[in-house]
Amino acid sequence: MDAMLKEITAQCAQYTAQGHVATYIPELANVDPDKLGIYVLLEDGRSYSAGDHQALFTMQSVVKPLILLLALMDSGIDAVRALVGVEATGKPFDAFNYSDQALTGAHINPMINTGAIALCTLIHGDTYHDRFSRLLELTRKLADNPSMDVDQSVYESEKLTGNKNRALAYMLTAYGMITDPVEEILDCYFRACSIQANCQDLAKIAHIFANHGRHPVTGEQMFPGAYAKYVNATLATCGMYDGSGEFALNVGFPAKSGVGGGIMGVVPHRMGIGVFAPALDKHGNSVAGVRMLAKLSEALDLNIY
Amino acid sequence: MDAMLKEITAQCAQYTAQGHVATYIPELANVDPDKLGIYVLLEDGRSYSAGDHQALFTMQSVVKPLILLLALMDSGIDAVRALVGVEATGKPFDAFNYSDQALTGAHINPMINTGAIALCTLIHGDTYHDRFSRLLELTRKLADNPSMDVDQSVYESEKLTGNKNRALAYMLTAYGMITDPVEEILDCYFRACSIQANCQDLAKIAHIFANHGRHPVTGEQMFPGAYAKYVNATLATCGMYDGSGEFALNVGFPAKSGVGGGIMGVVPHRMGIGVFAPALDKHGNSVAGVRMLAKLSEALDLNIY
Amino acid sequence: MDAMLKEITAQCAQYTAQGHVATYIPELANVDPDKLGIYVLLEDGRSYSAGDHQALFTMQSVVKPLILLLALMDSGIDAVRALVGVEATGKPFDAFNYSDQALTGAHINPMINTGAIALCTLIHGDTYHDRFSRLLELTRKLADNPSMDVDQSVYESEKLTGNKNRALAYMLTAYGMITDPVEEILDCYFRACSIQANCQDLAKIAHIFANHGRHPVTGEQMFPGAYAKYVNATLATCGMYDGSGEFALNVGFPAKSGVGGGIMGVVPHRMGIGVFAPALDKHGNSVAGVRMLAKLSEALDLNIY
Amino acid sequence: MDAMLKEITAQCAQYTAQGHVATYIPELANVDPDKLGIYVLLEDGRSYSAGDHQALFTMQSVVKPLILLLALMDSGIDAVRALVGVEATGKPFDAFNYSDQALTGAHINPMINTGAIALCTLIHGDTYHDRFSRLLELTRKLADNPSMDVDQSVYESEKLTGNKNRALAYMLTAYGMITDPVEEILDCYFRACSIQANCQDLAKIAHIFANHGRHPVTGEQMFPGAYAKYVNATLATCGMYDGSGEFALNVGFPAKSGVGGGIMGVVPHRMGIGVFAPALDKHGNSVAGVRMLAKLSEALDLNIY
Repeated sequence: MDAMLKEITAQCAQYTAQGHVATYIPELANVDPDKLGIYVLLEDGRSYSAGDHQALFTMQSVVKPLILLLALMDSGIDAVRALVGVEATGKPFDAFNYSDQALTGAHINPMINTGAIALCTLIHGDTYHDRFSRLLELTRKLADNPSMDVDQSVYESEKLTGNKNRALAYMLTAYGMITDPVEEILDCYFRACSIQANCQDLAKIAHIFANHGRHPVTGEQMFPGAYAKYVNATLATCGMYDGSGEFALNVGFPAKSGVGGGIMGVVPHRMGIGVFAPALDKHGNSVAGVRMLAKLSEALDLNIY
Repeated sequence: MDAMLKEITAQCAQYTAQGHVATYIPELANVDPDKLGIYVLLEDGRSYSAGDHQALFTMQSVVKPLILLLALMDSGIDAVRALVGVEATGKPFDAFNYSDQALTGAHINPMINTGAIALCTLIHGDTYHDRFSRLLELTRKLADNPSMDVDQSVYESEKLTGNKNRALAYMLTAYGMITDPVEEILDCYFRACSIQANCQDLAKIAHIFANHGRHPVTGEQMFPGAYAKYVNATLATCGMYDGSGEFALNVGFPAKSGVGGGIMGVVPHRMGIGVFAPALDKHGNSVAGVRMLAKLSEALDLNIY
Repeated sequence: MDAMLKEITAQCAQYTAQGHVATYIPELANVDPDKLGIYVLLEDGRSYSAGDHQALFTMQSVVKPLILLLALMDSGIDAVRALVGVEATGKPFDAFNYSDQALTGAHINPMINTGAIALCTLIHGDTYHDRFSRLLELTRKLADNPSMDVDQSVYESEKLTGNKNRALAYMLTAYGMITDPVEEILDCYFRACSIQANCQDLAKIAHIFANHGRHPVTGEQMFPGAYAKYVNATLATCGMYDGSGEFALNVGFPAKSGVGGGIMGVVPHRMGIGVFAPALDKHGNSVAGVRMLAKLSEALDLNIY
Repeated sequence: MDAMLKEITAQCAQYTAQGHVATYIPELANVDPDKLGIYVLLEDGRSYSAGDHQALFTMQSVVKPLILLLALMDSGIDAVRALVGVEATGKPFDAFNYSDQALTGAHINPMINTGAIALCTLIHGDTYHDRFSRLLELTRKLADNPSMDVDQSVYESEKLTGNKNRALAYMLTAYGMITDPVEEILDCYFRACSIQANCQDLAKIAHIFANHGRHPVTGEQMFPGAYAKYVNATLATCGMYDGSGEFALNVGFPAKSGVGGGIMGVVPHRMGIGVFAPALDKHGNSVAGVRMLAKLSEALDLNIY
């Protein structure tokens, strides 16, 4: 298995040259585009890895399933569904073109920025600083890694330049979908996107989603299985932006990508996977990361369809 | 199991009143909205049924996965992917609002009308009559039912009133995506939509998709497993129109609905399901049919996510 | 004045190289892109011309104001307004992206293809051949040129390749906005677009619109002045496709362009103008033609705003 | 003439009941919907009025032509055109649905919110407070009314609730079209919208646009005639939101409406008009105000087309 992962990373190294690291946040442009790593955690606790699996990157959109999960845990399925929908939008992750008629919760997906920003308002906490602390705490707990923390310079860069997200948040405000102060919500969101992780962290979190909320070793039910299925189904249809259909064909299991270059792969009942390769395709998905997952899926017959 | 299906149909009968039978084709408006049936075919060949499982209805969009399959079998994955994409469009099944920039194959999905019409051109045959005959033959073979045939009055009604499909087909022509005569392609498409089936037929077809192309009894590989996964993945992300995300959450396996009221459910490695209940929700999906599948999914833990 | 027109054509000849002749109809691609002509007809009957003012070209969209006029004359303002709107659409002339919600008469403009096709159904006549004959007759009468006729090869080329217009017409049918056979309506429309004219013809027609329907010499009121104002106002806001705002700024009077390279300019109470230069800009407007009109407008202070 | 205005207001009073006062800003909802006034200022200086012509209302979008004018005066035509376009958008005044591809200056119109906000950045001044002061000064000078000032409670209400405008401004920022601090630009914009005027003020300002920048009494050229034509042409194609085409048909001269209920009408070379009637139609235009202008246009033959 370790040998296979090694071979997969070797075969996929060439694809890093086909993408480009994200540049919309200045800090992200400094990442080494040739990095490439993978970490696989099986149901039974065995783990395998290859390449730059210890390299740190910011979670960016990979944190969205965790925002969704905490919103579900804090406010329940009904409140989440009342605020955001579940349909794929057929549009890029930061799309702005909602028509006036279309801007209802039903047209907002938790895996695109608008939806994730809205869901921050369903996380409990006296302040948005508290809400973020609870999100970070959950992330650390699921990843079993108490040292996870915010990349301060990325966070500051996001906050400084995140005007598209500001526009989306004020649009939500204008339509009465959120009422809290925009800058506070965004501060929580920008911090969340800036949490640093490595492949192992993603694999461990994915592992618990794959295991429907139950900790693989302790057996503790960390959150209801229904929430895991909710998140996993959402990842299956919308986790890879407008490359989700393609990913379902070529890879075939729930996953979430981020513009930091990470992808978290959830193979229900079987394994959690974390990959990292920061050169992105036009949808914002890691080029080499998607290739690695496709090869792994084929090699281990992970396609769930 | 029979008892459970009976209970599920009994519990879901109330939902038929929440929908409306399709009226865009005059013939479809004559269907009895209170009909309700289900048929389940397990991996091992055992079958169960309840309600109006023998009632005939026209397949309508349920035929789309078969059009996609035959296009794959005749022309291969590359040709299919070159013509139509795989992303959810976030739009209704007969949506017309492609912007000029967007009308490329990448934005056409095989599970919406535009894509299915385009795929008819990748089915082999000297004439479109031949192509349709081959599609009908494949359908009969997968359903193991040589008596399946076109509902002539529905076909004529579709042909007479199908101007939106004509518009979509001429749009494809205008953009150079299809070159054959529009009326011939549409004749094939309208006939395909008008094939009559019952719940058992859908379950048998679904069963073979669930079994990745292998006949459950004879063991014959009727088509490559890769094509089954292609179809199943497409159904998972786009099979229920712009209710696909919701269906993934609440039911959790690949399925295809049609405005005739049928839904074909594919549970990989486990079973094929056919349901029928012609009263539709706003997306064009059977209201009671979706409810039956949700209850069945919960009862038998069929959710793949 | 003749000298000035000569100078304007000389100055604007360079702009023919900045555009491209229309190619969406094969026949149109054969036109000499360097042609350039202008004809001006004053209120008092004096006329001036320069360049290739006698060269023939097909009217294409320049015929749209005549379709609108005849629809008004035959069916009245109320019927026209019930079928098509008057707002600029902000979209190209053959735009296809109506959302389902938006496709009502209010969103269709008589100066884009969809609207002009729809208006053919409000022209009287037992057959669409008769309707076209009446349109041609009106055109000849307003241009005072009984020899105007259809360019047969352009007409056949339009009919053969006009699939986008077919798509638009079937869309109108699908939404119940037109009920006559699509191919008959389109035959009338394609013939209308293929009527040949020269700069003088356009100037003479424009002259009558400028004169609010009254023949400048005979004094005959050829159609109600209210219809002239209706057409002129529509030209002012939408006559130059999505270059209409720009044209209002730079030229400042009602005008209608066609992809054949002609522009008909209407200066209320003052003059009718015809220009011809077949190289088009991205909006489908004659590059050099717009420049000639801008220079003429400045020289003679024709801006009405 | 006074008698005629009296009759027109009497005839149009019934239409106030067909509209609704704006409610998107709480303060605007308090206006008396039955108010109705008109003021006409002829080229030669004679003036006529009827109804509530002295009632004060906030200018709202009627200030947009003044923002455009001052941007032209301060930064010139090239800079204005580089930042915003001139085409009608076919969309409501506060439309949000720009696709990513479409958001360029060419698709932003100075008569919708996005464009007007952007143009505030082309007004000169050390601070946005200074810029606003210069805009107010220009407004007072054109209206010949030094007592014009901001309605403080409307301004505060706009500032408090103007989240859609915040969203639009951050979108402009995200696309690099504006770089100044959003809240400062919006403060200038909100103040501008909240300037109080009466019918006479609008008529006087319109009068100078009608007179192409020259003061009717003193003969002073207050700004270049080319800027007046620029503004007037923009009003003709886009001044009445997505009711501009309708207004061109039924009234036939450049005009600008605001959700405060005022309309400023510019009849080139002939007169300036101010009307006020706060009940609005679905486009945001004064119902009775449009009717009054239509009757006046017909009575005095003001249609320029």
